[in-house]
Amino acid sequence: MAIHPVDHAGLEILPFTDCLRMLDSVPVGRVGIFADGEIVILPVNHLMDGADVIFRSGPGSKLSSVGSKNLIAFEADQYDERAHSGWSVLITGFTEVVESDAEIERFERLGLQSWGGAAARDPHWIRIRPTSVTGRRTPGTAFG
Amino acid sequence: MAIHPVDHAGLEILPFTDCLRMLDSVPVGRVGIFADGEIVILPVNHLMDGADVIFRSGPGSKLSSVGSKNLIAFEADQYDERAHSGWSVLITGFTEVVESDAEIERFERLGLQSWGGAAARDPHWIRIRPTSVTGRRTPGTAFG
Repeated sequence: MAIHPVDHAGLEILPFTDCLRMLDSVPVGRVGIFADGEIVILPVNHLMDGADVIFRSGPGSKLSSVGSKNLIAFEADQYDERAHSGWSVLITGFTEVVESDAEIERFERLGLQSWGGAAARDPHWIRIRPTSVTGRRTPGTAFG
Repeated sequence: MAIHPVDHAGLEILPFTDCLRMLDSVPVGRVGIFADGEIVILPVNHLMDGADVIFRSGPGSKLSSVGSKNLIAFEADQYDERAHSGWSVLITGFTEVVESDAEIERFERLGLQSWGGAAARDPHWIRIRPTSVTGRRTPGTAFG
């Protein structure tokens, strides 16, 4: 039983606040950028700061081009293989480098850890300011 | 202990065959397309046909533009939240619609199910022919 309106494909349309809550409930999302004619999708550890996504990017990473007002996508999802159910949330927006020491300290206190890669050693902190936040869920489950 | 060479960020570089094996080990991946100036990332159920990724796309989906030799990205990953470890594989390539009834029957026998959305009802079967297959893993674990 769908508790939210469904889209043309039969998927439940998640309200904005549910999208943010779900993004906040998982430790990993995926950043997508379009660079040099290629689409790159890479997992990152993230946290939410209101509706903004915060993540870290190491030098020399394929994500090092972010942080200069580039268009970016951020996706998170979760699924239950046995129930064939799941949800996904997609943010598109623009990135900026977090320069404020106070903000960086606050994010560190919030516990954002990068599990691997250069981001763990010499990070840039990146903020995504969303221009669009959309979410979908398979209907008929309480999943998510 | 890394058993494969590591990249500049300290992540293990997965061999081609490991990448394909890992893609085959999970039921969900994420398709990324660049359309109308936007990056769209959406989860799909998939299966592997050799090095090709096979998935289904319903009419009216944001993915309905695929299947006409467009550039596409496909990402899958898996992580262990407690161990702070994980792997990810990224394919970039071009898409084509699977037209052959014999191939479609074969994929149906292989058990590709779409869990939700229009893809479950009136699917186009899409094949991604990779031009690039890359994978990374956090070092020091047997994860993946």
